Amino acid sequence: MKANGKEVRSVEYDKERNVIRLIDQRALPEELKFFEVGDYKEACYAIKDMVVRGAPAIGVTAAFAMAQAHLQKKDLKEVAGALRATRPTAYDLNYAIDRMLESEDPLRAAMEYYDSILDKGKRIGDYGEALIRDGSTVMTHCNAGALATADYGTALAPIRRAKEKGKKIKVLVSETRPRLQGAKLTAWELSNEGIEYYIIADGASGYFMKKGMVDLIIVGADRIASNGDFANKIGTYEKSVLAKENGVPFYVAAPVSTFDFSIDTGSEIPIEERSEDEVLFISGKRIAPQNSRALNPAFDVTPCDYVTGFITEYGVFKPEEIKKIREKNHYAQGRVA
Amino acid sequence: MKANGKEVRSVEYDKERNVIRLIDQRALPEELKFFEVGDYKEACYAIKDMVVRGAPAIGVTAAFAMAQAHLQKKDLKEVAGALRATRPTAYDLNYAIDRMLESEDPLRAAMEYYDSILDKGKRIGDYGEALIRDGSTVMTHCNAGALATADYGTALAPIRRAKEKGKKIKVLVSETRPRLQGAKLTAWELSNEGIEYYIIADGASGYFMKKGMVDLIIVGADRIASNGDFANKIGTYEKSVLAKENGVPFYVAAPVSTFDFSIDTGSEIPIEERSEDEVLFISGKRIAPQNSRALNPAFDVTPCDYVTGFITEYGVFKPEEIKKIREKNHYAQGRVA
Repeated sequence: MKANGKEVRSVEYDKERNVIRLIDQRALPEELKFFEVGDYKEACYAIKDMVVRGAPAIGVTAAFAMAQAHLQKKDLKEVAGALRATRPTAYDLNYAIDRMLESEDPLRAAMEYYDSILDKGKRIGDYGEALIRDGSTVMTHCNAGALATADYGTALAPIRRAKEKGKKIKVLVSETRPRLQGAKLTAWELSNEGIEYYIIADGASGYFMKKGMVDLIIVGADRIASNGDFANKIGTYEKSVLAKENGVPFYVAAPVSTFDFSIDTGSEIPIEERSEDEVLFISGKRIAPQNSRALNPAFDVTPCDYVTGFITEYGVFKPEEIKKIREKNHYAQGRVA
Repeated sequence: MKANGKEVRSVEYDKERNVIRLIDQRALPEELKFFEVGDYKEACYAIKDMVVRGAPAIGVTAAFAMAQAHLQKKDLKEVAGALRATRPTAYDLNYAIDRMLESEDPLRAAMEYYDSILDKGKRIGDYGEALIRDGSTVMTHCNAGALATADYGTALAPIRRAKEKGKKIKVLVSETRPRLQGAKLTAWELSNEGIEYYIIADGASGYFMKKGMVDLIIVGADRIASNGDFANKIGTYEKSVLAKENGVPFYVAAPVSTFDFSIDTGSEIPIEERSEDEVLFISGKRIAPQNSRALNPAFDVTPCDYVTGFITEYGVFKPEEIKKIREKNHYAQGRVA
């Protein structure tokens, strides 16, 4: 991805120093700075505190943290347990850790996993781009971009690709309270790519759909159940219901590593509850009266009925076609058989 | 309403000094301070800049501003025009100004209007309270409380009354970006009244409805068309669609002065677009990249199909019963005949 004209990646591994270098997403858009992970405890901190976030990016960070720990002769089962405990909803984390545990050469496996995520983003971009007509307005939520993967993105990949192919598009970015990943991160990416975008309050999404100003919605996912129910950033479910009500196509862009074929429906997905302070403070400033309480579920589950299609590295599938995704992915197929 | 244990009102008129005293709502919840309006230009500023906001509170402020201008021997037509131009969506503003223009004694008319708004809030509270079962969780949006009227409120009136009657209730307050009237104003009112509340991100409303944690929703309104379509703070439409999808009763609390019987449907309601900076800055701090653009409609229109009932000073009416409200209100009836 571009940042001030240069190419950067949100997750990189420095083989010589055995260090993982992350873009510190907490500092964006004000400042592009990096955070170095020297061991798995630092990796756990980086994931929990959202230095790095986005299901695929958490997955690759965990993969490198496992490889790093292997080289440091740590007990990989213990490391895996600590990493898994950081964030309960994102499935790529478990997927990546499982692959590392099963590998005889974790570093090679991590590098392959990383390359595959980059490649999958591009394939998602190609398949998704075909859904975006020239002149369209696309709505997205939270950040499912290069920052959330390693490069290129999931939901933003088709948008990037459409721009590369010369299509004139606009993006409506819902700011995504409480952590404002839309206003801070997605806007930062789109700004760097020179894509026209407008930030809107989360509650304004329905207004624009009802006015006929949204041609399609593309979001990412943190975990997708076998039936197509999926967890994503809080606010996604609302958009899906409003999209159906207003006849707006609603797509989920995710690599197969986000599919959890061990669960049947979304009711089995654990939902992370984060600190009340994420709601009660913005940029360190309290917005509510002293002693106010808040409820802060970080994700919600969207039933498959609201999904038009899943944009994956194997193509675009309807919820009822998820079996085909599983069949195409021998690894996923074998692991849960 | 209570503020730090004392009784205050958001709008008051000081007859001796011919001055309107407003709670400066821009300073809450950090500080309770007052803003004095000495002439209609200051009244226009106070309404535009949202020192005072909420359709009924804007109405009483405009009524006093007309009375004040009359005593100052100003041209009332000119004053009325300036006041009407401040905020296009709220209908009470027009309703109040029309009443003052038709009156031979604007001060007396303004005092009567003010008293009637206080009385209507209490009656809305009584009718609405009957809809709230003991142990319920009520969701509301923005601020339709004492601050938005003069005292007591519209959507918050039934909640206040339920508390007074000893019912144990909880309130889910959606923070209401961009201006955060939920987190700042509604939370401040509920905190002062000792009512249990939890602030949530706007995008989390659907999550709690889907989990069955919301027994009913009560919101205010800025303008209601003859068929029951109504304008209210941006985000209201989303809540109404999600409420219907999840079988949650959805009520609109408003005095008859909010009904605009001169229009048939919500498509005729003008929607105010406010500054992009309301979205791009929070507490004076930029949240998005430099040069980001935002779209900031201040209101949305909810079609009557999503409304369970209107809680008015005459009782609770279904959308198809709005004719009855008009019949009960001779003033409204006569004026638009």
